[in-house]
Amino acid sequence: MSKFYVPVGLSNRHIHLSKKDVEALFGEGYELTRFKDLAQPGQYAAAEKVDMVGPKGTIKGVRVLGPVRKDTQIEISLADGFVLGVKPPVRDSGDIEGSPGVKIVGPKGEVTIDKGVIAAARHIHMHTSDAEAIGVSDRDLVKVKVEGKRGLIFENVLARVHEEFKLEFHVDIEEGNAAGIKNGQELEIIK
Amino acid sequence: MSKFYVPVGLSNRHIHLSKKDVEALFGEGYELTRFKDLAQPGQYAAAEKVDMVGPKGTIKGVRVLGPVRKDTQIEISLADGFVLGVKPPVRDSGDIEGSPGVKIVGPKGEVTIDKGVIAAARHIHMHTSDAEAIGVSDRDLVKVKVEGKRGLIFENVLARVHEEFKLEFHVDIEEGNAAGIKNGQELEIIK
Repeated sequence: MSKFYVPVGLSNRHIHLSKKDVEALFGEGYELTRFKDLAQPGQYAAAEKVDMVGPKGTIKGVRVLGPVRKDTQIEISLADGFVLGVKPPVRDSGDIEGSPGVKIVGPKGEVTIDKGVIAAARHIHMHTSDAEAIGVSDRDLVKVKVEGKRGLIFENVLARVHEEFKLEFHVDIEEGNAAGIKNGQELEIIK
Repeated sequence: MSKFYVPVGLSNRHIHLSKKDVEALFGEGYELTRFKDLAQPGQYAAAEKVDMVGPKGTIKGVRVLGPVRKDTQIEISLADGFVLGVKPPVRDSGDIEGSPGVKIVGPKGEVTIDKGVIAAARHIHMHTSDAEAIGVSDRDLVKVKVEGKRGLIFENVLARVHEEFKLEFHVDIEEGNAAGIKNGQELEIIK
């Protein structure tokens, strides 16, 4: 049987902003500055950064990712949540109902969101052709195996299939460190 | 077949000190103050804290664990290593050859160690009777299964068997957060 491999993409804390919140934080008519393209086509790290202020603490210089989205969403680690004093639920991107909010501070203004702070659930972006080759469909759960001293098997890994996606396994920094893996490292997908 | 479970013990960053280094940091003849007993018999969190200074940054207020040991050993996360600017290898406790050093700052003095900074390899402390019931021997590797949204299987979990040990699965904070587990939570051991 063929084996299938996926390169790791480690996600540090970041924020996706709505157009309205971009303007509230950076000024009317402001548009995000493309700083560096991400692996997923069309997605980029913006030059802009903001601060997050929670009931217990502040995290400064959180990278904004573009382009703008319908809803503002903040993806942090559970350790970041401890610093801020909020408990981010582990959620798939876009699923923000009932998640905590936080104050966002930009150079030209502040926004307090009442939801949108999550810890992103691990997932694999797959091009339609990858999914066909591997034999999985959009929203299937697969496993990913890591070898080595910190070897483990990630279970409940959501497959996200789209013709504009590029094959990449997204975990946050804590998950990456727990498994001792690095950006770009190839891991085996297990169905 | 019987199933076997082990309670989680999350390890935050901490330091074990030699008698010589206790005196260098806290003063001649100084003895550590027992602050809180740990689950493993005889082990305790001391009231004392020290700062760690690496080439890139400082981490203040690192808890000292007692009693004193033959060699000073610092157990930090990979993220802590990033803050300090050192790369802790993932090692079993006591295996510090070739690991990086760091400067330790106490209220009465400083010590610069040339080795001793590790990220502790995940392990299970087992009483001899637990090991017999489960059917493993000292230094066997087992697996530990976590259910839930962040479900995973920890592989290469070292069994450490001793008649003075109490059954407990030790992982660091990043491993705990990656699996979404809490102190005291019972997890299944898989051989």
